Amino acid sequence: MREQPMRPSPISATVDFETDGIQHGFLRLPYSRDDSAWGSVMIPITVVKNGRGPTALLTGGNHGDEYEGPIALFELARSLDPAEVQGRVIIVPAMNYPAFLAGTRTSPIDKGNLNRSFPGRPDGTVTEKIADYFQRVLLPLADVVLDFHSGGRSLDFLPFCAAHILADKAQEESAFDFVKAFAAPYSMRMLEIDSVGMFDTAAEEMGKIFITTEIGGGGSATAGSVAIARRGAMNVLRNAGIVEGEPEILPTVWLDMPDARCFAFAEDVGLVEFMADLGEPVESGAVVARIHPTGRTGAKPLEIRAGMDGILIARHHPGLIKPGDCCAVLAVRIEEQ
Amino acid sequence: MREQPMRPSPISATVDFETDGIQHGFLRLPYSRDDSAWGSVMIPITVVKNGRGPTALLTGGNHGDEYEGPIALFELARSLDPAEVQGRVIIVPAMNYPAFLAGTRTSPIDKGNLNRSFPGRPDGTVTEKIADYFQRVLLPLADVVLDFHSGGRSLDFLPFCAAHILADKAQEESAFDFVKAFAAPYSMRMLEIDSVGMFDTAAEEMGKIFITTEIGGGGSATAGSVAIARRGAMNVLRNAGIVEGEPEILPTVWLDMPDARCFAFAEDVGLVEFMADLGEPVESGAVVARIHPTGRTGAKPLEIRAGMDGILIARHHPGLIKPGDCCAVLAVRIEEQ
Amino acid sequence: MREQPMRPSPISATVDFETDGIQHGFLRLPYSRDDSAWGSVMIPITVVKNGRGPTALLTGGNHGDEYEGPIALFELARSLDPAEVQGRVIIVPAMNYPAFLAGTRTSPIDKGNLNRSFPGRPDGTVTEKIADYFQRVLLPLADVVLDFHSGGRSLDFLPFCAAHILADKAQEESAFDFVKAFAAPYSMRMLEIDSVGMFDTAAEEMGKIFITTEIGGGGSATAGSVAIARRGAMNVLRNAGIVEGEPEILPTVWLDMPDARCFAFAEDVGLVEFMADLGEPVESGAVVARIHPTGRTGAKPLEIRAGMDGILIARHHPGLIKPGDCCAVLAVRIEEQ
Amino acid sequence: MREQPMRPSPISATVDFETDGIQHGFLRLPYSRDDSAWGSVMIPITVVKNGRGPTALLTGGNHGDEYEGPIALFELARSLDPAEVQGRVIIVPAMNYPAFLAGTRTSPIDKGNLNRSFPGRPDGTVTEKIADYFQRVLLPLADVVLDFHSGGRSLDFLPFCAAHILADKAQEESAFDFVKAFAAPYSMRMLEIDSVGMFDTAAEEMGKIFITTEIGGGGSATAGSVAIARRGAMNVLRNAGIVEGEPEILPTVWLDMPDARCFAFAEDVGLVEFMADLGEPVESGAVVARIHPTGRTGAKPLEIRAGMDGILIARHHPGLIKPGDCCAVLAVRIEEQ
Amino acid sequence: MREQPMRPSPISATVDFETDGIQHGFLRLPYSRDDSAWGSVMIPITVVKNGRGPTALLTGGNHGDEYEGPIALFELARSLDPAEVQGRVIIVPAMNYPAFLAGTRTSPIDKGNLNRSFPGRPDGTVTEKIADYFQRVLLPLADVVLDFHSGGRSLDFLPFCAAHILADKAQEESAFDFVKAFAAPYSMRMLEIDSVGMFDTAAEEMGKIFITTEIGGGGSATAGSVAIARRGAMNVLRNAGIVEGEPEILPTVWLDMPDARCFAFAEDVGLVEFMADLGEPVESGAVVARIHPTGRTGAKPLEIRAGMDGILIARHHPGLIKPGDCCAVLAVRIEEQ
Amino acid sequence: MREQPMRPSPISATVDFETDGIQHGFLRLPYSRDDSAWGSVMIPITVVKNGRGPTALLTGGNHGDEYEGPIALFELARSLDPAEVQGRVIIVPAMNYPAFLAGTRTSPIDKGNLNRSFPGRPDGTVTEKIADYFQRVLLPLADVVLDFHSGGRSLDFLPFCAAHILADKAQEESAFDFVKAFAAPYSMRMLEIDSVGMFDTAAEEMGKIFITTEIGGGGSATAGSVAIARRGAMNVLRNAGIVEGEPEILPTVWLDMPDARCFAFAEDVGLVEFMADLGEPVESGAVVARIHPTGRTGAKPLEIRAGMDGILIARHHPGLIKPGDCCAVLAVRIEEQ
Repeated sequence: MREQPMRPSPISATVDFETDGIQHGFLRLPYSRDDSAWGSVMIPITVVKNGRGPTALLTGGNHGDEYEGPIALFELARSLDPAEVQGRVIIVPAMNYPAFLAGTRTSPIDKGNLNRSFPGRPDGTVTEKIADYFQRVLLPLADVVLDFHSGGRSLDFLPFCAAHILADKAQEESAFDFVKAFAAPYSMRMLEIDSVGMFDTAAEEMGKIFITTEIGGGGSATAGSVAIARRGAMNVLRNAGIVEGEPEILPTVWLDMPDARCFAFAEDVGLVEFMADLGEPVESGAVVARIHPTGRTGAKPLEIRAGMDGILIARHHPGLIKPGDCCAVLAVRIEEQ
Repeated sequence: MREQPMRPSPISATVDFETDGIQHGFLRLPYSRDDSAWGSVMIPITVVKNGRGPTALLTGGNHGDEYEGPIALFELARSLDPAEVQGRVIIVPAMNYPAFLAGTRTSPIDKGNLNRSFPGRPDGTVTEKIADYFQRVLLPLADVVLDFHSGGRSLDFLPFCAAHILADKAQEESAFDFVKAFAAPYSMRMLEIDSVGMFDTAAEEMGKIFITTEIGGGGSATAGSVAIARRGAMNVLRNAGIVEGEPEILPTVWLDMPDARCFAFAEDVGLVEFMADLGEPVESGAVVARIHPTGRTGAKPLEIRAGMDGILIARHHPGLIKPGDCCAVLAVRIEEQ
Repeated sequence: MREQPMRPSPISATVDFETDGIQHGFLRLPYSRDDSAWGSVMIPITVVKNGRGPTALLTGGNHGDEYEGPIALFELARSLDPAEVQGRVIIVPAMNYPAFLAGTRTSPIDKGNLNRSFPGRPDGTVTEKIADYFQRVLLPLADVVLDFHSGGRSLDFLPFCAAHILADKAQEESAFDFVKAFAAPYSMRMLEIDSVGMFDTAAEEMGKIFITTEIGGGGSATAGSVAIARRGAMNVLRNAGIVEGEPEILPTVWLDMPDARCFAFAEDVGLVEFMADLGEPVESGAVVARIHPTGRTGAKPLEIRAGMDGILIARHHPGLIKPGDCCAVLAVRIEEQ
Repeated sequence: MREQPMRPSPISATVDFETDGIQHGFLRLPYSRDDSAWGSVMIPITVVKNGRGPTALLTGGNHGDEYEGPIALFELARSLDPAEVQGRVIIVPAMNYPAFLAGTRTSPIDKGNLNRSFPGRPDGTVTEKIADYFQRVLLPLADVVLDFHSGGRSLDFLPFCAAHILADKAQEESAFDFVKAFAAPYSMRMLEIDSVGMFDTAAEEMGKIFITTEIGGGGSATAGSVAIARRGAMNVLRNAGIVEGEPEILPTVWLDMPDARCFAFAEDVGLVEFMADLGEPVESGAVVARIHPTGRTGAKPLEIRAGMDGILIARHHPGLIKPGDCCAVLAVRIEEQ
Repeated sequence: MREQPMRPSPISATVDFETDGIQHGFLRLPYSRDDSAWGSVMIPITVVKNGRGPTALLTGGNHGDEYEGPIALFELARSLDPAEVQGRVIIVPAMNYPAFLAGTRTSPIDKGNLNRSFPGRPDGTVTEKIADYFQRVLLPLADVVLDFHSGGRSLDFLPFCAAHILADKAQEESAFDFVKAFAAPYSMRMLEIDSVGMFDTAAEEMGKIFITTEIGGGGSATAGSVAIARRGAMNVLRNAGIVEGEPEILPTVWLDMPDARCFAFAEDVGLVEFMADLGEPVESGAVVARIHPTGRTGAKPLEIRAGMDGILIARHHPGLIKPGDCCAVLAVRIEEQ
Repeated sequence: MREQPMRPSPISATVDFETDGIQHGFLRLPYSRDDSAWGSVMIPITVVKNGRGPTALLTGGNHGDEYEGPIALFELARSLDPAEVQGRVIIVPAMNYPAFLAGTRTSPIDKGNLNRSFPGRPDGTVTEKIADYFQRVLLPLADVVLDFHSGGRSLDFLPFCAAHILADKAQEESAFDFVKAFAAPYSMRMLEIDSVGMFDTAAEEMGKIFITTEIGGGGSATAGSVAIARRGAMNVLRNAGIVEGEPEILPTVWLDMPDARCFAFAEDVGLVEFMADLGEPVESGAVVARIHPTGRTGAKPLEIRAGMDGILIARHHPGLIKPGDCCAVLAVRIEEQ
């Protein structure tokens, strides 16, 4: 059984990654469908390059309903002057572009969760083709990768920047150096339990410096949350030496999610009432949320209790909750890294 | 042409409004449909009665994606002790119950916006039948009505309690007395421009004291926003003399929305970025929000400017915006009423 | 305020109701829509006429998911020989034809329940236009009307023929004479509580003899249930003197539904388990059905109890049940009429 | 029973109809819905005015899938110079704007066919509100109205301009004078059988000169069909004296649709094969089209025959056809008017 | 090319299979989606264990619209006392839980037919993940497996218990011993022609005793059909020695489906009329069912004839039928096994 | 790692490919689904055979919204007399039958594009199962394959017959000989850039003579375009020696698509206006089409320019266009092959 060479990506870029200056273009992904026999998905991309230097890959819209990244990156793509750059910045403000246009976490075309689709396939679904292009074309070009996430429509987060605990401690240390430079109000050490299919893993396995964020959520963004993202992106470029100057450092609270007791899941359907808000401390065994049955009045609400001491860093956003939904996430405060 | 007497409501209550004690039951609305030939909509209702005294009608879920009201009222319905009541409390935590179950502003059955469906019709759509029942059965029983609203999935509000400027100044004064008793962080004087079809109007035209709220939004509720609703509901019952004791009064900021310049609408589709957050001051002519085109990078965002000096009291919640969407609402601070 | 004359029906028939012989044609109802700008709904109709004599109007598919009527009437329309007729037989096997084609109770076009749409409107929805045509064109032609019903997809019935208790006792007596002639295994005296909008009421108010049936259900038909419908239709024609010969009489059990205690409704969602089957006796207070919660194992089922002594004549068909669904219907056995 | 004065239209224009110069703006129609509580429909409108003179109202997109009108009118709105105008031109390129955006005949919001919704209602559906605004605001401003139609996705037409046979012969003569000025390849005399609810009727009953078109169809437009529309619009403005100069006249073929034999409808579902193309002569009794059953090979196609001698002026466009669909339309050639 | 070890199942159980007593819990399957970024499917499971002894795995809801199994098993899970058990009983009343909640044969998430998805994949669709968990975790724990099926919404069956003809005659004999113990009114010898992907095959290939049922159908269950399932489940536990006592044996009719002539398929769309009911004998060549065309009256029905002598054991349930639908199934009576 | 033999196709034919005479039957593909547990897809097929001779496989409906092929082939299947055949003709008028019934390019069942699904899989989706049957059963029977295509609902083409540039020049020459025999108004030399998954490639790799067409489009067919298809099919049979006589040859224009500059794609959403029609010459750099923004009047249209000199051979059909849609295709005229 001969192993076949992988066919090339069907995606073609209208920008040249080796040309100096600023280029706004598209990643064109052919997509034949009922309403467009010879149609394509056109993913916007910007390349800003000036001479030699490291390459930063800045991405948003990995999930289509998370907005701090796309807002900061559409703005950065428009305003970054090649003259202030030494090296290269590749900006894709909306990676899973069909999901972004639909305002949904996953792609409306194939229900693909891009962040569970790596390394992707050139002959797979639209989402898998996007993953494959990042895996085989864009990631190899990068030295440092900043992938913006937020809670999306169904979760809401305290704003933090994060990197993973890695086997390669030098790589890990570099990543946390960038987390510190990002200067979000909170900074997180993450030990990913199931990292299969993630963009993070794809980048880290290539030895790239990879950092990510969770900033707000609920399918919205505020002036305040966007300011965190915008400052963070510039700080990363400064820390990489691509843009001149020192990162603008603000105080941060370091957090850790030690084990599965961080997570509290709902086992019932109903109207969810939180007993604490994001950032507030919760004691082990305390009621974090109650689920009111909606079928009749007078019924007792069901209680969801904290599995450990911690502060509430994420919660279910919509007013109604279903069995199996993640209701609340706790983390513990740690000393600076 | 003989005018026909209106046929009775098809809705029947499983509770008796004249019985002392607490009753949890349903408003049963027959609804024949493909998956249930002899089906019904079962709207939960609680009646708490003790002897003689005024009647308060407390309602939530007039729009199905607004959660502070339903959470406070499901809890109140479960916990209110008839012994602490003098008079009667009628609680309907989710008026447009099909919309509430679907988590949507309007009814999934007929797309009906209940708050534009009054006075309703006994032979109309499901939503019109619900409006008719409130119009002809529940409102006549009430002395004071508290109808909870929030921003829903598409808007987010500063938390306020409000009443309308009315022709009958005694009625208006009573209403604002209840607004003050509610004790929300903000209190609003509203001059309704188009009040056709509203529950508010239906109640006010019967001479009832009617107050309403906007508390948060985004299709969610927080521990903080629910606390406002819960305290407000008890304060209203106390102010009405139904529950003993004085309202628990907290400081409030009085606001006014003088004219149509309060509202800023989007004329383009795109990714919306706010330049100010809720509660922040905005000057006339300043950019309140920008709309980034999503089709390509490098395009200039469109600016939405404030039509007057004021503070930002409401905003579009989702990250994407469409032409015609209300983007921002301003109000001016006024002296206490 | 001048009362306008009602505009004529937009429906045109391709058959002539005054011509002798057999004609198969259509009621053509213009219906402009996205996929057919100048489209129509084509409702099949058969007219069998021979000389002078009474007119029978035989109808099925008033609800689109009830099959004994359509099967018996498509067959009768094909096989009835004008030579064996004295008078006229008008057959519409599928009144709400769009619903019939979709296999649903109501119309997929407008969600219209035809049997709640009378007297209809010539400028209304498609369903209201059909009702109007029966009201103003077909019913006036008829002396006796037989309208076939069954339980549809969501209910299952013991097989019975029925007529209503009427103010005009002569009209009532004639109708029950036809019920006896129909010779179903069961025969029912119905006191309609809410008869607004029904085909039955429209016919009865014109002084027509009107009988109806409920034969089986579950969205299916059996060889046995179709045999009842087929024999009944011929018996009605014989009893009317349109077809020669005596009705083929079989024994029947007479039933009565005295009041609202006949009906048991579900108040919860779940998996429904019946404790008795159709035709079995149930005592007042006995558990007729249980609703098992589906969210987890180990939870206690909720019990639905009989409101009176009787036999089970109808039940909810699907395995899952929702709050407000009619779960079970009881009737009491009475002496022959 | 007092007749209430009709409430004002909820639509507000962002343009002023009395100001000289060119204005591009919107008709803003408030439309509260699940994804935008305080949303609106924003219908583009252009007003070009210069001093005194007649007013022409030019409209496209009455049905949302007809494209010659919108293309010609978006272009005209952009390019018409107020200096070349004497009087006023009001341009609404896409009347049923939600339908136009969806590319469908009827509105995706309420399935409303705008051309069957006149005179509309200020408190009706979105489509009825649009009709009401034209009825009570825009039509009264106009002297001459040109409303562009084509076949849409389900029909295809020979290109013609048309007016109606009217009781007021002076009004009729003026209209046909404008039809001649339009100078389409074909010109049609129309005797509308069912004119209830049409924009045409609303305009004609106010005494306005009203002309309309059918130009191509199939949900598309060609360079050739757009040229007809563009020339026709300018010719109408010239003929009205709003733009200087003579209409550019080209030869036209005059047609008449004498009676219902013009129309051939399908009675079966299947694959439709035409035996003649648009513009070709067809003899009475000849097979115009055949419908091939699609369920199996070897089955005989069903034939649709011409009801009179004529030329084929319109046909069903999609490859599949359903019972009740208009399959073919014939007209007869007449001498010039 | 190195073969990779299969990754572990993403499903985690909240019950411990090795603990004595009764546990009600969940199989939690992480499922990230648009409305719940960190959501899960929560499949109810019960484990009843007491000391040493064989393990029975009892399953329902393999197809989501078959109800005798889920009703019997939710009830058994609630009522089985660990004290009456020797060994272990694992109960999963609704295997394809998303399909069960939707009341559909296949999963609404991925359209997966669980009984064609074995052995499944840990990184596949939701349905494939469920199959993989049964394949690699639950089946290895079992000695005897009873998987309940019925006809579902589109088929209706005579009630029977069945096992397969197997290559391993000892295994086959044990299975038929359990079929006999189940004591359904009918018992079936099945020779599966295409067994790829079935739960049955997965179990049998591991050497497990596997029996299954078809009891009724039509998307419903009766008191009578549930009684068969309930008694059968207890009889299986008794026959396995897990519950004390002898199976409660009732007479059964043994049936065989010798070859493909058992099946009659529809080749046309229409209204289906059966000429025989379940359990009735049919002769080879006789008309089993007729399909009435629904497009017009007067058309001849199409006949479906029996391919062999037999009794009707299954039929199409809905009133309408489509080309390719299985219309009728015959079996022949044989001597006891 | 043992390579498993591929399981047989689940599709069974009701025709025998080796029997003389004409047979109309089905390819029956079992397809279990929610509304038919034991359902099937029934693909019509005709086999006409007479003695020895070559086999032609004639196919349409590879994409479900292309109609010249199905019309010509349903007609040919009905009318071809075995006596006029020497050899065998296998006709499948609608290969992707579910797509054909839905009138869509891809299958409504699995969104499969059949012409990108070869070689298919016997255990894949419905579309992959169809591809596998053609790959392993029908193609091996064929000597020459004619696969009809048109533009479908989203494209419109000049009518041409085409073959591919192949490595095997003898095979290529034979194919172009059949293109010439087909005698369409235009004939095309195609160099396929991405041929993975195509029916064409599957046939060519087996060494078969394969020709294809593009005839019209827009989701419709005309008398003229069907005549081309019908004559072409008979000419192919004549050229193969299966039907006696010489092909009926008409003049053709030979075209070539040299490279990617043939294609012009849209980068914006809007209303598309073409500046040239099919068959017209276009110069390099000329504006082929303009895209009018639909959000407001007065905005400048975006221009799409030709990448080379050529004639317009294909265009986007619908009036609205989306980013990534193929807008226009050019080709150059060449000397006869």
